[in-house]
Amino acid sequence: MSDGAAPKFNQPLGGNDMPRFGGVPTMMRLPSQDTAEGLDACFVGIPMDIGTSNRTGTRHGPRAIRAESGMMRPYNMATGAGPFAKMQVADIGDVAINTFDLKKTVDIITAAYDEILKHDVVPLTLGGDHTLSYPVLRAIAKKHGPVALIHVDAHADTNDLMFGEKIAHGTPFRRAVEDGLLQNDKVFQIGLRGTGYEPGDFDWGRQQGFTVIPAEECWHKSLAPLMQDIRARIGDTPCYLTYDIDSLDPSIAPGTGTMEIGGLTTIQALEIVRGCKGLNLVGGDLVEVSPQYDTTGATAMLGANLLYEMLCVLPKTWA
Amino acid sequence: MSDGAAPKFNQPLGGNDMPRFGGVPTMMRLPSQDTAEGLDACFVGIPMDIGTSNRTGTRHGPRAIRAESGMMRPYNMATGAGPFAKMQVADIGDVAINTFDLKKTVDIITAAYDEILKHDVVPLTLGGDHTLSYPVLRAIAKKHGPVALIHVDAHADTNDLMFGEKIAHGTPFRRAVEDGLLQNDKVFQIGLRGTGYEPGDFDWGRQQGFTVIPAEECWHKSLAPLMQDIRARIGDTPCYLTYDIDSLDPSIAPGTGTMEIGGLTTIQALEIVRGCKGLNLVGGDLVEVSPQYDTTGATAMLGANLLYEMLCVLPKTWA
Amino acid sequence: MSDGAAPKFNQPLGGNDMPRFGGVPTMMRLPSQDTAEGLDACFVGIPMDIGTSNRTGTRHGPRAIRAESGMMRPYNMATGAGPFAKMQVADIGDVAINTFDLKKTVDIITAAYDEILKHDVVPLTLGGDHTLSYPVLRAIAKKHGPVALIHVDAHADTNDLMFGEKIAHGTPFRRAVEDGLLQNDKVFQIGLRGTGYEPGDFDWGRQQGFTVIPAEECWHKSLAPLMQDIRARIGDTPCYLTYDIDSLDPSIAPGTGTMEIGGLTTIQALEIVRGCKGLNLVGGDLVEVSPQYDTTGATAMLGANLLYEMLCVLPKTWA
Amino acid sequence: MSDGAAPKFNQPLGGNDMPRFGGVPTMMRLPSQDTAEGLDACFVGIPMDIGTSNRTGTRHGPRAIRAESGMMRPYNMATGAGPFAKMQVADIGDVAINTFDLKKTVDIITAAYDEILKHDVVPLTLGGDHTLSYPVLRAIAKKHGPVALIHVDAHADTNDLMFGEKIAHGTPFRRAVEDGLLQNDKVFQIGLRGTGYEPGDFDWGRQQGFTVIPAEECWHKSLAPLMQDIRARIGDTPCYLTYDIDSLDPSIAPGTGTMEIGGLTTIQALEIVRGCKGLNLVGGDLVEVSPQYDTTGATAMLGANLLYEMLCVLPKTWA
Amino acid sequence: MSDGAAPKFNQPLGGNDMPRFGGVPTMMRLPSQDTAEGLDACFVGIPMDIGTSNRTGTRHGPRAIRAESGMMRPYNMATGAGPFAKMQVADIGDVAINTFDLKKTVDIITAAYDEILKHDVVPLTLGGDHTLSYPVLRAIAKKHGPVALIHVDAHADTNDLMFGEKIAHGTPFRRAVEDGLLQNDKVFQIGLRGTGYEPGDFDWGRQQGFTVIPAEECWHKSLAPLMQDIRARIGDTPCYLTYDIDSLDPSIAPGTGTMEIGGLTTIQALEIVRGCKGLNLVGGDLVEVSPQYDTTGATAMLGANLLYEMLCVLPKTWA
Amino acid sequence: MSDGAAPKFNQPLGGNDMPRFGGVPTMMRLPSQDTAEGLDACFVGIPMDIGTSNRTGTRHGPRAIRAESGMMRPYNMATGAGPFAKMQVADIGDVAINTFDLKKTVDIITAAYDEILKHDVVPLTLGGDHTLSYPVLRAIAKKHGPVALIHVDAHADTNDLMFGEKIAHGTPFRRAVEDGLLQNDKVFQIGLRGTGYEPGDFDWGRQQGFTVIPAEECWHKSLAPLMQDIRARIGDTPCYLTYDIDSLDPSIAPGTGTMEIGGLTTIQALEIVRGCKGLNLVGGDLVEVSPQYDTTGATAMLGANLLYEMLCVLPKTWA
Repeated sequence: MSDGAAPKFNQPLGGNDMPRFGGVPTMMRLPSQDTAEGLDACFVGIPMDIGTSNRTGTRHGPRAIRAESGMMRPYNMATGAGPFAKMQVADIGDVAINTFDLKKTVDIITAAYDEILKHDVVPLTLGGDHTLSYPVLRAIAKKHGPVALIHVDAHADTNDLMFGEKIAHGTPFRRAVEDGLLQNDKVFQIGLRGTGYEPGDFDWGRQQGFTVIPAEECWHKSLAPLMQDIRARIGDTPCYLTYDIDSLDPSIAPGTGTMEIGGLTTIQALEIVRGCKGLNLVGGDLVEVSPQYDTTGATAMLGANLLYEMLCVLPKTWA
Repeated sequence: MSDGAAPKFNQPLGGNDMPRFGGVPTMMRLPSQDTAEGLDACFVGIPMDIGTSNRTGTRHGPRAIRAESGMMRPYNMATGAGPFAKMQVADIGDVAINTFDLKKTVDIITAAYDEILKHDVVPLTLGGDHTLSYPVLRAIAKKHGPVALIHVDAHADTNDLMFGEKIAHGTPFRRAVEDGLLQNDKVFQIGLRGTGYEPGDFDWGRQQGFTVIPAEECWHKSLAPLMQDIRARIGDTPCYLTYDIDSLDPSIAPGTGTMEIGGLTTIQALEIVRGCKGLNLVGGDLVEVSPQYDTTGATAMLGANLLYEMLCVLPKTWA
Repeated sequence: MSDGAAPKFNQPLGGNDMPRFGGVPTMMRLPSQDTAEGLDACFVGIPMDIGTSNRTGTRHGPRAIRAESGMMRPYNMATGAGPFAKMQVADIGDVAINTFDLKKTVDIITAAYDEILKHDVVPLTLGGDHTLSYPVLRAIAKKHGPVALIHVDAHADTNDLMFGEKIAHGTPFRRAVEDGLLQNDKVFQIGLRGTGYEPGDFDWGRQQGFTVIPAEECWHKSLAPLMQDIRARIGDTPCYLTYDIDSLDPSIAPGTGTMEIGGLTTIQALEIVRGCKGLNLVGGDLVEVSPQYDTTGATAMLGANLLYEMLCVLPKTWA
Repeated sequence: MSDGAAPKFNQPLGGNDMPRFGGVPTMMRLPSQDTAEGLDACFVGIPMDIGTSNRTGTRHGPRAIRAESGMMRPYNMATGAGPFAKMQVADIGDVAINTFDLKKTVDIITAAYDEILKHDVVPLTLGGDHTLSYPVLRAIAKKHGPVALIHVDAHADTNDLMFGEKIAHGTPFRRAVEDGLLQNDKVFQIGLRGTGYEPGDFDWGRQQGFTVIPAEECWHKSLAPLMQDIRARIGDTPCYLTYDIDSLDPSIAPGTGTMEIGGLTTIQALEIVRGCKGLNLVGGDLVEVSPQYDTTGATAMLGANLLYEMLCVLPKTWA
Repeated sequence: MSDGAAPKFNQPLGGNDMPRFGGVPTMMRLPSQDTAEGLDACFVGIPMDIGTSNRTGTRHGPRAIRAESGMMRPYNMATGAGPFAKMQVADIGDVAINTFDLKKTVDIITAAYDEILKHDVVPLTLGGDHTLSYPVLRAIAKKHGPVALIHVDAHADTNDLMFGEKIAHGTPFRRAVEDGLLQNDKVFQIGLRGTGYEPGDFDWGRQQGFTVIPAEECWHKSLAPLMQDIRARIGDTPCYLTYDIDSLDPSIAPGTGTMEIGGLTTIQALEIVRGCKGLNLVGGDLVEVSPQYDTTGATAMLGANLLYEMLCVLPKTWA
Repeated sequence: MSDGAAPKFNQPLGGNDMPRFGGVPTMMRLPSQDTAEGLDACFVGIPMDIGTSNRTGTRHGPRAIRAESGMMRPYNMATGAGPFAKMQVADIGDVAINTFDLKKTVDIITAAYDEILKHDVVPLTLGGDHTLSYPVLRAIAKKHGPVALIHVDAHADTNDLMFGEKIAHGTPFRRAVEDGLLQNDKVFQIGLRGTGYEPGDFDWGRQQGFTVIPAEECWHKSLAPLMQDIRARIGDTPCYLTYDIDSLDPSIAPGTGTMEIGGLTTIQALEIVRGCKGLNLVGGDLVEVSPQYDTTGATAMLGANLLYEMLCVLPKTWA
């Protein structure tokens, strides 16, 4: 990259141009711009945590993910993907949420994504708490119609209410179903586990047509076959990927608010995201990174890598 | 305390009865009860942080303060105060705030304190972010009428709006003035400093009659004379003490969200609280302890001690 | 749980009644009581670390486990267990050990458990260092006779002496054998590994009839078959489960004092405890959580979950 | 700032436009640009630590200082300064140093500052280790001639050699003297202390004409009189201010590599920088912030504030 | 030190011979030897924490103090002292205490110091919890007769019993008085504060003839005059200096187990130790450094410096 | 070890002679000596980090590894190896590198190893950043001729240049090939992964004859068969083992500078090192441990164990 003709698209700032610990900490040290104009894919931050029910701090997630993304180079050595050779990508900054009002924040997010989606771009979101998937999906469905959903998480996030509230980080997919944003029979929830208020807590989704793959079904094995099956069932349907970092075992991703033991491994996370190659991904998010509990930076770094892996499986990367 | 007649009032659990790292972590390892019935003073927690504008985490403040309070013994060696020999004191637990809605939380707090204040009790609150002082003052003023206020803080907290919102941790004393909860000429703001949106940011209070003592006026000296003056000016008026831990220099109290350099010393904090002896204190709070940034426990421990010092200057302790 | 008839038994305080970061941090936010009267199972803390030989801090273990238990809900989504629908459970607080004298502490513990076991209750202990299993087993055997033992650990803990002392965290099961507290042919030590003073350091137990399953025999596989075998060999014999958190790999449970690499996975830990379903468990403990080294809270949270999983396999849960 | 005519100059991004934890973390959330063109003052980062002799990590200093600067507002409440009303200020990013070669890095820095100083701008540098002051001073002196120097530090940094090397963080001012970059009789070293290889370690500077004010002479008093004297002695001479964060006591600024006890207080630091008002400051730096040891963020936040205070005393702020 | 004749005495390993982060971490990187033979002063570690009543971890104190001592050079820039030019000093390692039995440990310590004191050496002890001062004083008094004592601490440590025990970190000076190890009218307790079981908790010492200087009497002033007075009263009497790091304010020394707010400053600590110049110091200790809570290393580094300052005031340094 | 005849060789200091947290922190608490004279194997530290390109701090690696090695006992319970019964082993301290000049440091290291290798000893190196393998291999090849290499790492470290430099932690094996230090067809790179500047970044080695086993080929399986194959291919050729701790997944070894997700497990690391039994190992290193990011000590402890496992597979251990 250091010689020859100028690349056609934005490139991450390389370590031979600026030490990896220097420069502006955008996502992957990509150029930043204010809108999604001219982009094929964009990284967007939503610095919020007021939807969280337990440990707090995901408001600082986007900044931490960006900071830990600084070491990533353009090519994916495992899959051969070179997203920056095929797409124009930039970091378009953060949504200016209202940190004092969760309900207003939800509407601010949808408005921001409506604006982003005026362009032919795939938004990849740096969370922030999981509440954000609901307002993002509202904008996504407005453009693409009801979507297939791959939802990787320790929790179903299909509560009707939390402390009496419709909007919180445990309710987004209930709301999405109510609003008709999802193709329910093409919704896959992977990694659910832990404790519940009732033994049937994961059943509401199943009743809507969701496929639930609890963590226990993932133990001791590769998830490549599962993803093959999911790809077959989703086909060409526009698909959204929502990745809650707490799907991973707390030993792997402690930098989050609602840990549940017995979760997925990093290898399985990579198998899931890499297994999305071939799907018609129209958006994705990586949520619930809480840097205060990420004492080593490894959780944010993992989140940054999973967002890059999402970029690597976008249709245009392989077009 | 280990022999003789049973004490008349609740006593903190002693280290000779249970190691200091054992037992239920109530405030000072005092007995807990559900209401304020029969109490002269009570400790109450408000585990909230959704009013904060910068670093988060004060939702965990009450628990951290209680945990760090475990080493305190009943008598104050410096002042001779023995609050547990004179008053019935208990920890009455936490207010069940709605962590997804700040405006509802404000009303929940006022309702909870209305209930507490049906009893003849002085509530000492473990915060939680500074938003809480407004709803607490609503209940206090309902019972006692407009009160004098000693407000120790790095910030004036008299903004009209934050991000367009009336309710946030930078607005409580503006709201309190608007609601007529304060005797404005008996309001003292100690420790203000830092940067502002305009050079006159601290003047709104002065225009209402507040006395502002910026941090710079406190440098290099004892605050005992200041408190003598304040006592003279407040006299017998019912008085509320609100202590924001960020009034202290960040080197002393880093476990908070909005640090400002050049702040008060611990010695000055003690001079302020001990200097309230003789005032008609009807309530107090200690806010903005954020344990995630309190890597050594020293900030929460300091908060616990200042709450104890408030107990030591309540009128009944010296009656 | 929010409507209908009042539940018959104690329930964990729910997140819809009090935010998960609020309220008194008892185990699972259960009601507390001073004795085991009327209980089917109880959680007890033993805040000790004076038996540890390397990194210290397990005295703070019970408090940390309780704090991290606050997010757990009543039902086990993987196994369907609903212990609080079948049993009366409470947190009965901490044993008031003598932190300055290890030998006296051992006797204090036995006395406390003798008292607990006057009731028909299964005690589940929050440690504290592993020394405690010896005095607990003395009380257990007094009531139930010599017991079967499932001992999950990186270390055999069958030293004769440590620094010349009979009582320390490396000797409890040697002492238990000497006192006749165990049915030696029904003792299973799972996860042993690391370095030793002699190549035969794990053989003393084998010579007594113990079955030793070193960590290496657990690598790369499910432990469900092992547990099936163990269940068959123990049958109806009253059985005690002692779970040292250092049985897990240090990458999973760094919050402990004597780490050994190459340990069990969380999934294997769950397979072991869930594999105890069907055994006649009369007690259990979870030891060696040292919060100072648990920088993310994940070790204590894991400990809390394993204690809950023990509750979920008690005979009465499935009666 | 939210209404009326557009401000004439760049303004820090306000909290009412974007939450303080969002947006691109430039210094004070100012606009960034690639060169110093059109600027009156600029912030520049030098992310280096290969000149450090003890604890490492100052390569991450500029990023940490910027991150912690996000809460600062435009006006200085204590002094009334409004630098952004009087000057065009921006963050011009980091110098792309060669992290594998210290000697080349020194030349890269001088070249970068030669480029910056083609514009009529005052550079304020975010370090990085103290080695950087030497190459910066080379560029400064090239433009302004030999300068007066206010050097606040625990160490004299006038060693001839460290481990046989001419270039290291303990030698910059020896080199500056040798190169004739300083007006030696207008060099003031404030805060020196600790241990030395010889009792006369601080005397080399004195022999060149430096004035040395050891930390012990600063104890228990305001430094305002000292600064008055220094201003009188420097007069109109172009002056450079180099502020090593380790001049402060380690209890105040632990996030650094070579701590020495008995140092300055934050109040004294403010008195020193504020005491530069009236001097002809042509540049300044804040060095030796090492975020790995700044567990609470307070050291970087203090560094950010001191850099802002430098901005507040530049001649144009008061012109 | 790098040229000329070989020095007569042991010298700390210099930074020009080995980087400061390399080499064996003895105290000040001095040579080590197994006994005190041939030494004028020696550093000894006592790695114990089983006498502590609250937060634990002082067993790791000696190692942390040594690690943080690595940056110290031979000469004291403030006082001009050059202890290594006048005395033979070495690190003689740790006392092999019995970490499972506090009472035996006390006897092990006395035996070890009896052995040390067969040589004409001043032992300076790296603690370890404060229990150790009692057994050290037994050996000291055996050699020197009852000694004067300068005791700097937040606590009087004159309890009769803790949890019924005679030996614990809150009782050493009661025991020392009972054993006749002290010249009671030459005992000075500096820095006492906090809470007590009774208002008269500090009076027992006074009744024995001790002079108590509570922390409040130290606020806002230099302690040089106090030390002048103490020197006058002690005169030539053999004197022992016991320095509990918790005498300092927790904002300065959080790395300890029993913090009390409102404590001494680092400057006052230096004034105290430097103020011992002229006394006939026959031993000293620095206790209660608990590295787990010393998240930045600043507490251990401070402890290391105070031990060095003790070396700098030994009679032979100025002979 | 506590009775009978004195052992023939140096033994690690046992926990019954000195508590594990006491004593001089050499590697495994072995005796130290200044040269390799008389040793069969030695531990050597190289405290350097100036070759690192991202997070810093490996200069503190050797000290941290030694500190965490203190709990290891002489015998390997899994393999039965008893290295101290067969070999004379000692810790010979650190190489005095020049921390201000990377190129000089490389020559210092080769000179130091030339000196070491005058003795018939196998050096096991505690890093330090990976740059060091190049100068060590220069000395190794000088004595043994070109060697086989087992290189476990996330990165190929075969860059030609980093920021234009030949010497850095990403280039050592390119340099080694250029200098003819390796038998290229007997070089095995295990664990490579992550992102690259070009899709063919790992191919340079393959073009030289290296065998590359990317991390993805290691997922979900034992590496024992791989090692069997490697042993067959290397045969009796003198072999060097270089183990970069970042070969492990960041969830396992976060205490390092350049984390890449999807890495090896601890079990695989043990399989690799134990799988070297039978090879003619003439040296080994364990590099890239950065204690600042090792918040729990688990990374350094893992590094210490892997170094011990190297000792356990040296030819003389099994001779």
